[in-house]
Amino acid sequence: MPEPKNVAILGATGAVGAQMLQCLEERDFPVGELRLLASKRSAGTDMCWNGRLLRVTEATPESFEGVDIVLGAATNPVAEALLPHAVAAGAVCVDNSSAFRLDPEVPLVVPEINPEDVAWNHGIVANPNCATIIGLVCVAPLSRVAGARRIVCSTYQAASGAGLPGIEELEAENQAIVEGTPMPEPRAFAYQLAYNLIPQIGGFDGIGYTSEEMKMQNEGCKIMHDPDLRVNCTCVRVPIARSHSESITVEFERPITPDEARDVLRQAPGVRVVDDPAGQLYPMPLATSDQDLVYVGRIREDVSAPEGVNSLTFWCCGDQIRKGAATNAVQIAELLL
Amino acid sequence: MPEPKNVAILGATGAVGAQMLQCLEERDFPVGELRLLASKRSAGTDMCWNGRLLRVTEATPESFEGVDIVLGAATNPVAEALLPHAVAAGAVCVDNSSAFRLDPEVPLVVPEINPEDVAWNHGIVANPNCATIIGLVCVAPLSRVAGARRIVCSTYQAASGAGLPGIEELEAENQAIVEGTPMPEPRAFAYQLAYNLIPQIGGFDGIGYTSEEMKMQNEGCKIMHDPDLRVNCTCVRVPIARSHSESITVEFERPITPDEARDVLRQAPGVRVVDDPAGQLYPMPLATSDQDLVYVGRIREDVSAPEGVNSLTFWCCGDQIRKGAATNAVQIAELLL
Repeated sequence: MPEPKNVAILGATGAVGAQMLQCLEERDFPVGELRLLASKRSAGTDMCWNGRLLRVTEATPESFEGVDIVLGAATNPVAEALLPHAVAAGAVCVDNSSAFRLDPEVPLVVPEINPEDVAWNHGIVANPNCATIIGLVCVAPLSRVAGARRIVCSTYQAASGAGLPGIEELEAENQAIVEGTPMPEPRAFAYQLAYNLIPQIGGFDGIGYTSEEMKMQNEGCKIMHDPDLRVNCTCVRVPIARSHSESITVEFERPITPDEARDVLRQAPGVRVVDDPAGQLYPMPLATSDQDLVYVGRIREDVSAPEGVNSLTFWCCGDQIRKGAATNAVQIAELLL
Repeated sequence: MPEPKNVAILGATGAVGAQMLQCLEERDFPVGELRLLASKRSAGTDMCWNGRLLRVTEATPESFEGVDIVLGAATNPVAEALLPHAVAAGAVCVDNSSAFRLDPEVPLVVPEINPEDVAWNHGIVANPNCATIIGLVCVAPLSRVAGARRIVCSTYQAASGAGLPGIEELEAENQAIVEGTPMPEPRAFAYQLAYNLIPQIGGFDGIGYTSEEMKMQNEGCKIMHDPDLRVNCTCVRVPIARSHSESITVEFERPITPDEARDVLRQAPGVRVVDDPAGQLYPMPLATSDQDLVYVGRIREDVSAPEGVNSLTFWCCGDQIRKGAATNAVQIAELLL
């Protein structure tokens, strides 16, 4: 049994922070003291953990004295402002913001893919983007066998990517439609999400991609230790609650059949294959919500592949708040023990 | 002014049939007599057209005497059973079912792409699949300039693809969620669609594709007169009402830049370019519903394209009931005048 660690959750009252709290309990993480930190506005709330009520306190540079591990679920500015103080106080931070992900001094880790990278941390380990984690947990084991060269991915991302306000906004919009009351003004999203799709997540770069779309490319290269991996992503917000889905086509260096891919994915950690077309069984976000595994199915040959190109297409779903964020962070913390 | 034609709508009471009725009125189609045909169950209903109430009668083999043009919005078995009688009675049928689409004796027409094919009909002109029309209206003008070789497409298809029962089922599910009442049993779809995605439309073939997914390949080759075009489609039902959206990557024989593609699409019939990322302007299904144009945006270089591969990625939305079905059929009928 590893020695208990003093743990702080930064941003404990958000969707990801609250899920981190629950994951620590579910996974029996050896917690000594548990400190729940949030903004001044959220301080004073009580949160439930292992049958106890814990009081949330305001996060300040002095909050990290005596803390061994910080689980970061705050925004980029908060992470940038506070995590250096946590590192200075001797803690190791597992940070879910995107602030440090591409910093060459910071490992970016999916425990099923590159757990060894945790070892060279200098006080911060970054948790990747949610859609990146969910897609790559499926791509990486196939790549180990056949060498992924190119990924074309279209995402179907849940409201939870914008936190609790995102889920609540979608629910409020659906309620307004059912009850015939005025549509609330969008705040979490740029437009009404109910009965709609929004093909923008994050800001745009100079060549027409969003920040979210370039994460699978940029973070993927780092996680998979493959600077030559090329990823074309289209990220779309869809009116569902908390599981992200992805339609993925991968071109490989070496041939790999759908049957071989299914075998590889059946052995892969963190993945469950649900792929029985005749039985109408395939991953769906409603069925994969509030679960830690990424579900993959619809695995098939890419019928558009030119002569000599080894290409497969599949569909995967994973809970954005859990494996896309909180569970992955707690798994990284387990590697730190 | 063309001479008025006697028109029959077969399946007039469905979502597509009712929209055909409205399109005839909106487009000032020169109608002589208008006959509304439906199943025995729907016969006797009155439908509104140009300020008149028209009585729906039961469709039988004898329904087509004196009819010049039949607009078919019925199921495959009904189309197969009745349209040959219409042809024998001297009518030309524009059929929205998939029964005749790949018949070498039957032209398959998108008026913006291959209007000339209407000329060689032998009494039936087929209306293509909705997702195929909406995607190809954008791909075809680009292909004329640069030669499309390969398409990788992920669709986001609305409930209306299953007709009025599909839309009503989604609404009933959302109502049950908002009101906290029991979820109605799915009928139009295999699973609950509200807050969910269903990665299956149609039945599966032997290599893991659905019938819907192979339509863009098979119908696309015929419409574009290009037997070598290769299409990899993933078709997904999403919880929205009536516009289909598609994330499309196209590889071309010859180079084409995003700016050139935008110019080509701005000139293209049936298409509207909405592509201003800085202004957060891009097509969305809520904004393109109940409209005849296909909206296209998010046009950009495919950053995953290997050296020497000319590839673009874009996003398009179009109303499934209108341009995906009824409007396209009435446009074909206009070519027949």
